[in-house]
Amino acid sequence: MTTEPLSSPLLQSLIGDEEASAFFSNEAELRAMLQVEEALADAEAEVGLIESAAASRISEACRNFQPDWSRLAQGLAQDGVIVPEFVKQLRAAVGETHAKSVHVGATSQDIIDTGLILRLKDLTQIYLHRLNALVHSLGALKARDGEIRLMAHTRMQQALPFTAADKIDTWLQPIERLRDLLQQLQPRLLVLQLGGPVGTRGELKQHGDAIADGMAERLGLGFVPSWHSQRDRIGEFGAWLSLASGTLGKIGQDVALMTQNEVGEVRLATGGGSSAMPHKSNPVPAEVLVTLARFNAGMLGTLHQALVHENERSGAAWTLEWMVLPQMAIATGAALSKANALLEGLTFVAHQAQP
Amino acid sequence: MTTEPLSSPLLQSLIGDEEASAFFSNEAELRAMLQVEEALADAEAEVGLIESAAASRISEACRNFQPDWSRLAQGLAQDGVIVPEFVKQLRAAVGETHAKSVHVGATSQDIIDTGLILRLKDLTQIYLHRLNALVHSLGALKARDGEIRLMAHTRMQQALPFTAADKIDTWLQPIERLRDLLQQLQPRLLVLQLGGPVGTRGELKQHGDAIADGMAERLGLGFVPSWHSQRDRIGEFGAWLSLASGTLGKIGQDVALMTQNEVGEVRLATGGGSSAMPHKSNPVPAEVLVTLARFNAGMLGTLHQALVHENERSGAAWTLEWMVLPQMAIATGAALSKANALLEGLTFVAHQAQP
Amino acid sequence: MTTEPLSSPLLQSLIGDEEASAFFSNEAELRAMLQVEEALADAEAEVGLIESAAASRISEACRNFQPDWSRLAQGLAQDGVIVPEFVKQLRAAVGETHAKSVHVGATSQDIIDTGLILRLKDLTQIYLHRLNALVHSLGALKARDGEIRLMAHTRMQQALPFTAADKIDTWLQPIERLRDLLQQLQPRLLVLQLGGPVGTRGELKQHGDAIADGMAERLGLGFVPSWHSQRDRIGEFGAWLSLASGTLGKIGQDVALMTQNEVGEVRLATGGGSSAMPHKSNPVPAEVLVTLARFNAGMLGTLHQALVHENERSGAAWTLEWMVLPQMAIATGAALSKANALLEGLTFVAHQAQP
Amino acid sequence: MTTEPLSSPLLQSLIGDEEASAFFSNEAELRAMLQVEEALADAEAEVGLIESAAASRISEACRNFQPDWSRLAQGLAQDGVIVPEFVKQLRAAVGETHAKSVHVGATSQDIIDTGLILRLKDLTQIYLHRLNALVHSLGALKARDGEIRLMAHTRMQQALPFTAADKIDTWLQPIERLRDLLQQLQPRLLVLQLGGPVGTRGELKQHGDAIADGMAERLGLGFVPSWHSQRDRIGEFGAWLSLASGTLGKIGQDVALMTQNEVGEVRLATGGGSSAMPHKSNPVPAEVLVTLARFNAGMLGTLHQALVHENERSGAAWTLEWMVLPQMAIATGAALSKANALLEGLTFVAHQAQP
Repeated sequence: MTTEPLSSPLLQSLIGDEEASAFFSNEAELRAMLQVEEALADAEAEVGLIESAAASRISEACRNFQPDWSRLAQGLAQDGVIVPEFVKQLRAAVGETHAKSVHVGATSQDIIDTGLILRLKDLTQIYLHRLNALVHSLGALKARDGEIRLMAHTRMQQALPFTAADKIDTWLQPIERLRDLLQQLQPRLLVLQLGGPVGTRGELKQHGDAIADGMAERLGLGFVPSWHSQRDRIGEFGAWLSLASGTLGKIGQDVALMTQNEVGEVRLATGGGSSAMPHKSNPVPAEVLVTLARFNAGMLGTLHQALVHENERSGAAWTLEWMVLPQMAIATGAALSKANALLEGLTFVAHQAQP
Repeated sequence: MTTEPLSSPLLQSLIGDEEASAFFSNEAELRAMLQVEEALADAEAEVGLIESAAASRISEACRNFQPDWSRLAQGLAQDGVIVPEFVKQLRAAVGETHAKSVHVGATSQDIIDTGLILRLKDLTQIYLHRLNALVHSLGALKARDGEIRLMAHTRMQQALPFTAADKIDTWLQPIERLRDLLQQLQPRLLVLQLGGPVGTRGELKQHGDAIADGMAERLGLGFVPSWHSQRDRIGEFGAWLSLASGTLGKIGQDVALMTQNEVGEVRLATGGGSSAMPHKSNPVPAEVLVTLARFNAGMLGTLHQALVHENERSGAAWTLEWMVLPQMAIATGAALSKANALLEGLTFVAHQAQP
Repeated sequence: MTTEPLSSPLLQSLIGDEEASAFFSNEAELRAMLQVEEALADAEAEVGLIESAAASRISEACRNFQPDWSRLAQGLAQDGVIVPEFVKQLRAAVGETHAKSVHVGATSQDIIDTGLILRLKDLTQIYLHRLNALVHSLGALKARDGEIRLMAHTRMQQALPFTAADKIDTWLQPIERLRDLLQQLQPRLLVLQLGGPVGTRGELKQHGDAIADGMAERLGLGFVPSWHSQRDRIGEFGAWLSLASGTLGKIGQDVALMTQNEVGEVRLATGGGSSAMPHKSNPVPAEVLVTLARFNAGMLGTLHQALVHENERSGAAWTLEWMVLPQMAIATGAALSKANALLEGLTFVAHQAQP
Repeated sequence: MTTEPLSSPLLQSLIGDEEASAFFSNEAELRAMLQVEEALADAEAEVGLIESAAASRISEACRNFQPDWSRLAQGLAQDGVIVPEFVKQLRAAVGETHAKSVHVGATSQDIIDTGLILRLKDLTQIYLHRLNALVHSLGALKARDGEIRLMAHTRMQQALPFTAADKIDTWLQPIERLRDLLQQLQPRLLVLQLGGPVGTRGELKQHGDAIADGMAERLGLGFVPSWHSQRDRIGEFGAWLSLASGTLGKIGQDVALMTQNEVGEVRLATGGGSSAMPHKSNPVPAEVLVTLARFNAGMLGTLHQALVHENERSGAAWTLEWMVLPQMAIATGAALSKANALLEGLTFVAHQAQP
């Protein structure tokens, strides 16, 4: 019955999200970085900063690039960022003639930050799809079970009767707001970072804005001044991630309370089993939503510490973002998926109010 | 040389903000609650749910209300919320004839949450004024000192020369975004909460939406469905507060680094003294900006724990907001004031680059 | 029915603790600072660093000191710490002859940190008394209700029957550990800070250790090398505070779940009322324990940010401690009191297990 | 130049610790769980609860167990804990005759929590070794460079001259305390968890304590009552982890400040390179220590949220620990290693004080 060991921690099966995680793999990051270098070279060729032949060669090399992962890891450990070693490898791949045309006038943060944003562009679309699915699921639940009589509970005590529709509305409305909010922040988040060593585009010889514009267009990102030492875009996105997982955590907490045997206002399609008590049917996905909410709330407090990004580049603060943001993004992805699965298997049951 | 003891902690003189604090005094909260009860009664009279005479009497009583503070404190300790005792006192003030027309169909959260939002309406305007002042100060600084040659620093090391204007831009741009962001969230935040005991406006006998509409208009707030168990509005505002203080904390950190004796790229108008070293001139306001940023970042992580607001009212989560949000709002107010004072007294000095 | 406005926020009646708060008033801090200056002068006279007459005069002045609060506030705002202005006022009170013998060789952090520790010495004793009271209350509850049959709940679902004694044991054991842990940390926490401007006791002319020893004995604190830039003592104490409030928060959460109308395994002596629903009896103190636990957990995360205390004194990190630690200490005090009150009014009720 | 993709995130090379990570791999967790099941069976055979032949067979099966990883992952996703599926696989491996003697009277938390503690036992020893190495490195540094004249800096400004020995003392003393503290907490942390389904050892038919005692001895852990719903042991350990990384973060921050070109009081053996500025030599490991400190501080705030562990088992709170504690343990491991490497390559340089 043996199978291959899993490369990811088992725990991912409970609290992870494969689709969201994929954006934060080594391969996905490298792919995004290559896209950025390619767009940079193309845009630089367009304004004449490098030769067209160089841009073509760089583009070709980017598309066929085979990294030496082990040296990338060593480089990252040494330099605190993967880009110096990555550029070295990419230059080698491009070949001697055009090696010097790689990464001209750019700096590590241009490649890493833009590479992150490129992936967040696709990821936020996935979030939007899942939010839409949640809106749909809740609508269907309301249509089917909306008239069932429940008991509202305030401060952990029975308050007054109301209906499943009333309950569902309190779950649905913030999800609609989350969707609006995400759409409002996308234009602030999904923007090119290009600044060069100190954020002035100064190494690009008067072509800075034109090159940034060309890159932005090629990459489908917004054009803005260099923002690499201004981390509010990241902080705002992190806040959205936690607002989303927190909103879903509230649904999870409600469901966990409603599935209590003594309350019995909700039945779940599938329950978690116990190693000791065969009769148990645990509301595992509901609990996980609470976990993810509390996790992301704490992580947000940590991510915002990284807003204090000293001077023109903070190794300490930037690395802190790397440790925190991907986890938050995956946790929110997981919460969205799990909430949908939970709601699709959920049935309301009329409350047997106490006399 | 004796003066009266201060009623507030001395520390407020360093990290507080009187103008912002005033919104969170006992008196300010009570005043806001009275406004809400008055608007409720007026709106209820308008649709005929209570008599006009009752509304007039309630309005009069609200305007002349003299609380028994000590009993309010006892009531809050007993009930977990001030409203039951407050309504009791208000009914006594209204007098027997119309006492029963006070607080009809409303619940504690309607009064407390709407009372909070009323104050945030004014407070967010103050924030906007201060953000405008910052934009102005930074603009003036750039006009005066923009051409001074500084050294950009990345990862705590000298990078390449740039100008004070380049530096100022990195401070200014996120402040402009904070302003936009605040204006975008105001319509989501500045809304009436009216739901009655379980959030359905069900005790208002079909007049729920009309009364809410009437209240919203009287109070100058937006009309939306009851949202009292949906805390994303609060969570979003808290995130803004931390984004703002974090953005200013970055400025403070930069200034603290630039005022180092060995660096000397910034001079401050006034420095803090030392009890032991007369030669010291400490960049106190710059340090305080860092403190406020780190404080609010951590508080945001705590505030988002309160998004997990169980069922129709969570005593635990709601009380947590009360402990956290006012502090954050004051800290951000203080950061905005202090940043402005810091920038007004700041002079850039050309960097003596090392060979 | 009017009474005087409360000087403290009303909210303190719900989540505060007067006895613990008293240690963090302006007056209490000033008193502690005066004790430190007096002990410093005495110990310095003993080794001959200042004259005995000076020490006597300083002692007298300390005992009769009348501060100018308003200037203290201004000084704190200007210098980032109250000590420079405080020493100035104290010197004026001492009079010209001996003014120069005040605060000799000491620095702000010596006075503030030792002044804090002096108060924590008494406060930790109060905690120990309250922990003892909790152990006693739980023992009494076990003796009275221990045999009552309850239902254990795992993952929000009924597990198997057990007894109130089993439940109480899970509340009691960690409280006993908290007591041990506090006693273990007291010797690390309750120590003198004396370092002078840069922590070397260098301004005390070879008498540094003798003076520190004399001060420690006079103040009843442990003698250790200067630790003012080593904040692990504070961080360890903060962790204890959160462990304590978290442990009590678990009790609160259990009680809130057990008092649910549908579960009914616990009855409370008094319940919180509602402004809208006269039938409600809310488990307010149980909820508050959860609030305080979540508050302190988040605050601990913030306090530990201040462990990164740069160089010989960090204005930013130290001020952050001032904003966080007193709140945590009061919250834990409140949690201990409220837990005791809750447990004293609590009766277990046999569970009506579902078929 | 291609090599195999790395299975772990590249980022681990910068902020991770292979030796510490190894304790949290799927394989390590499984191995620990098998040890626990084996010890349980042995101890149960000893008291006669299961047959000796069963225990022998279970022991053999545990030692040769080949998991079906994919089903373990599915089981974890379904049940919220891996144990039900694990026990199912282990029973199949044991074979029909003795299958029913596997996991008798135990529950998931017994296996998972004890399995965690087993690994923390070894990990805390590694921490102690590394703390000793740090004490040694700092001692050697002090012996070699201690007399070098540095400038103390308070509030980011030059204070007074002192020596490298003075500086090193402020780094060394808290490390010695961390060592003491870890040794003090080991007896509280390194204890068996055995409680059965609801924590009473009730399914073990009067043999509960004897079996627990037998298991504790076999596993080299302390014997205590079941503590699975009392998470202070975990919370205390988490606090230590953050105290340790925070203490090292302070060293990192000091070094980053002292390596500033303008200050130049420290030289590092190796510096990080830049993709844009060949002259840069970045203090990467110093920055990483700051990152790890801030990360763990925030994580601690999150971990302490899990102290509110409702009733006899909280799926939500327990899962939150799983997401947080391993990361913290690895971050502290990394901080200890990196601090040692940093210190071994560090040279103090006399300060060129400004006039």
